[in-house]
Amino acid sequence: MLKGHQTWVFESKPTVIASAAVGGPYEAKGPLAPDFDLLHEDIRLGQDSYEKAEQKLQEQACETAIRKANMKKEDVQFLLSGDLINQIVPSSFSARTLSIPFLGLYGACSTSMEGLSLASLLVDSKSAKNALVCVSSHNAASEKQYRYPTEYGSQKPPTAQWTVTGSGAALVSKQGKGPKVTASTIGRVIDMGLTDPFNMGAAMAPAAVDTLEAHFRDLDRDPSYYDLIATGDLGRVGHRIAGDLLKHHGIDMPEELLTDCGILIYHEDQPVVLAGGSGCGCAAVTTFGHFFNRMRKGELRKILIVATGALLSPMSFQQKESIPCVAHAVSIEI
Amino acid sequence: MLKGHQTWVFESKPTVIASAAVGGPYEAKGPLAPDFDLLHEDIRLGQDSYEKAEQKLQEQACETAIRKANMKKEDVQFLLSGDLINQIVPSSFSARTLSIPFLGLYGACSTSMEGLSLASLLVDSKSAKNALVCVSSHNAASEKQYRYPTEYGSQKPPTAQWTVTGSGAALVSKQGKGPKVTASTIGRVIDMGLTDPFNMGAAMAPAAVDTLEAHFRDLDRDPSYYDLIATGDLGRVGHRIAGDLLKHHGIDMPEELLTDCGILIYHEDQPVVLAGGSGCGCAAVTTFGHFFNRMRKGELRKILIVATGALLSPMSFQQKESIPCVAHAVSIEI
Repeated sequence: MLKGHQTWVFESKPTVIASAAVGGPYEAKGPLAPDFDLLHEDIRLGQDSYEKAEQKLQEQACETAIRKANMKKEDVQFLLSGDLINQIVPSSFSARTLSIPFLGLYGACSTSMEGLSLASLLVDSKSAKNALVCVSSHNAASEKQYRYPTEYGSQKPPTAQWTVTGSGAALVSKQGKGPKVTASTIGRVIDMGLTDPFNMGAAMAPAAVDTLEAHFRDLDRDPSYYDLIATGDLGRVGHRIAGDLLKHHGIDMPEELLTDCGILIYHEDQPVVLAGGSGCGCAAVTTFGHFFNRMRKGELRKILIVATGALLSPMSFQQKESIPCVAHAVSIEI
Repeated sequence: MLKGHQTWVFESKPTVIASAAVGGPYEAKGPLAPDFDLLHEDIRLGQDSYEKAEQKLQEQACETAIRKANMKKEDVQFLLSGDLINQIVPSSFSARTLSIPFLGLYGACSTSMEGLSLASLLVDSKSAKNALVCVSSHNAASEKQYRYPTEYGSQKPPTAQWTVTGSGAALVSKQGKGPKVTASTIGRVIDMGLTDPFNMGAAMAPAAVDTLEAHFRDLDRDPSYYDLIATGDLGRVGHRIAGDLLKHHGIDMPEELLTDCGILIYHEDQPVVLAGGSGCGCAAVTTFGHFFNRMRKGELRKILIVATGALLSPMSFQQKESIPCVAHAVSIEI
């Protein structure tokens, strides 16, 4: 049900009855390692390309979530998935393996919350009994496509973020035990004219703030409604900018309330991660793994996840375009 | 509301209150030219890249549809759009121009019906008053990305299809006059092992048949329910294969009932188009332009559009993968 301009309220409160997170070697060394269902030492997962490794991450996340729900894939009516790779081939190919009716999504690193919003809408509107969301990213596959192959060993500025190798899946159902999706705010595309693909956090921060503002306005809520508010993957640079922008927009956001998946997923002193994590998989594994585990343990009761996406392509950058960004916010309660 | 395994029935029958089709120079020479709102002689639309030209096609289609509905863009709650270009940049950049909360989709050439299904679901579930679907493709931008730049002048086999330069937009609303969306069947990914990107029709035909079979089974209908059934863009080769497969699956499909957007959009003897049209824009302009006009004139009352998508990427082809395909079917009545 539409509330305000751009927010859906899910009256039946669709439930995430099971979720899963699969990660790679850098994630295994990070502070959220205990929240993963599977961690791979081999960034190739034994596959002969990074893209096929990413497909495998998705298949494992989906199969784990379905198994944890004591279901078979035939019990799931729809799969909503996406990733960062051209034509989202890891998603399409894992949809082929799973053979579940498939809706392909592209929202860059906001895809996890775009998918969770739509899956919850499907369940809330009785258009699905069970809908599966899955999102992934793969460090080496992304670097190769967006920047330079990792093997080149090119240098990066400290504002750059490290693409997460991981996939998160969440199985949304009309009934059951688990975190409940209560509302979603779908974001507009915001572009403040930034052009540096090595500083995505700064580009995405205004989109996160625009969506947060819309969320609080549409639901007539303020940040204190939540135990925790996490942006998708702004990293350390974007997180500071978002904090400043929120103040500037008159939103009273206590510093300890607002965190960021890109900051949480790696240790600050972990080599190579620079300003923090990024990639579709970042908000997905942090939310579907870490946060949902904390909710199930009773440590968190009401959270808001604002996944942010930088909607650039290597070509739009070469064509000297700035970076349009989007953010979708999902309210989850237990 | 879910019916059967994979079909949504829209009880409130969301209405396409306005739609628009914008095309390029080849479409202007085709038999559907009178159904376009705008036709461009210049394949660049005065822009400095083909991708920016494609963005312009989308913006014009959206603005035309909104204007024909006597609305402003502020009246539209959500924009659902997609295209074939890496990271769907034409869609993201036109979403920036339009500033409407944005859900990015990727379903290759099935995206028009993926979008129309989701927009109808939004309206049917009262999650939007007005939702806009927009899809595009651009011949030169697609050829450059998927095959070779047109300027190379490379030869093609007769099974190849010609990517449509065009964008179609449809504005779905809870009430008003126009074609009504009554049901959608969301397809599974089907891959019969075909690997030839110059024969997509053959690769996609089994996906179209799988979705048609699911549609008739879920709704307990047979083809005679419809005045016209159109596949997305199988072209002449895929169309013949689909006909044979339907017979093989025991579906009684009268030959004159089944047509294909890829066949209709160009004259058979039009130079360069070979086996017919393809691309996201093909099913979009044919449906949102031609078919909806015929429905408004009373020539068609019940139609089923089965948009088909080949979910390959140039990289998946180089990695010697076969071509996974998907098809989504939307039932529209007036």
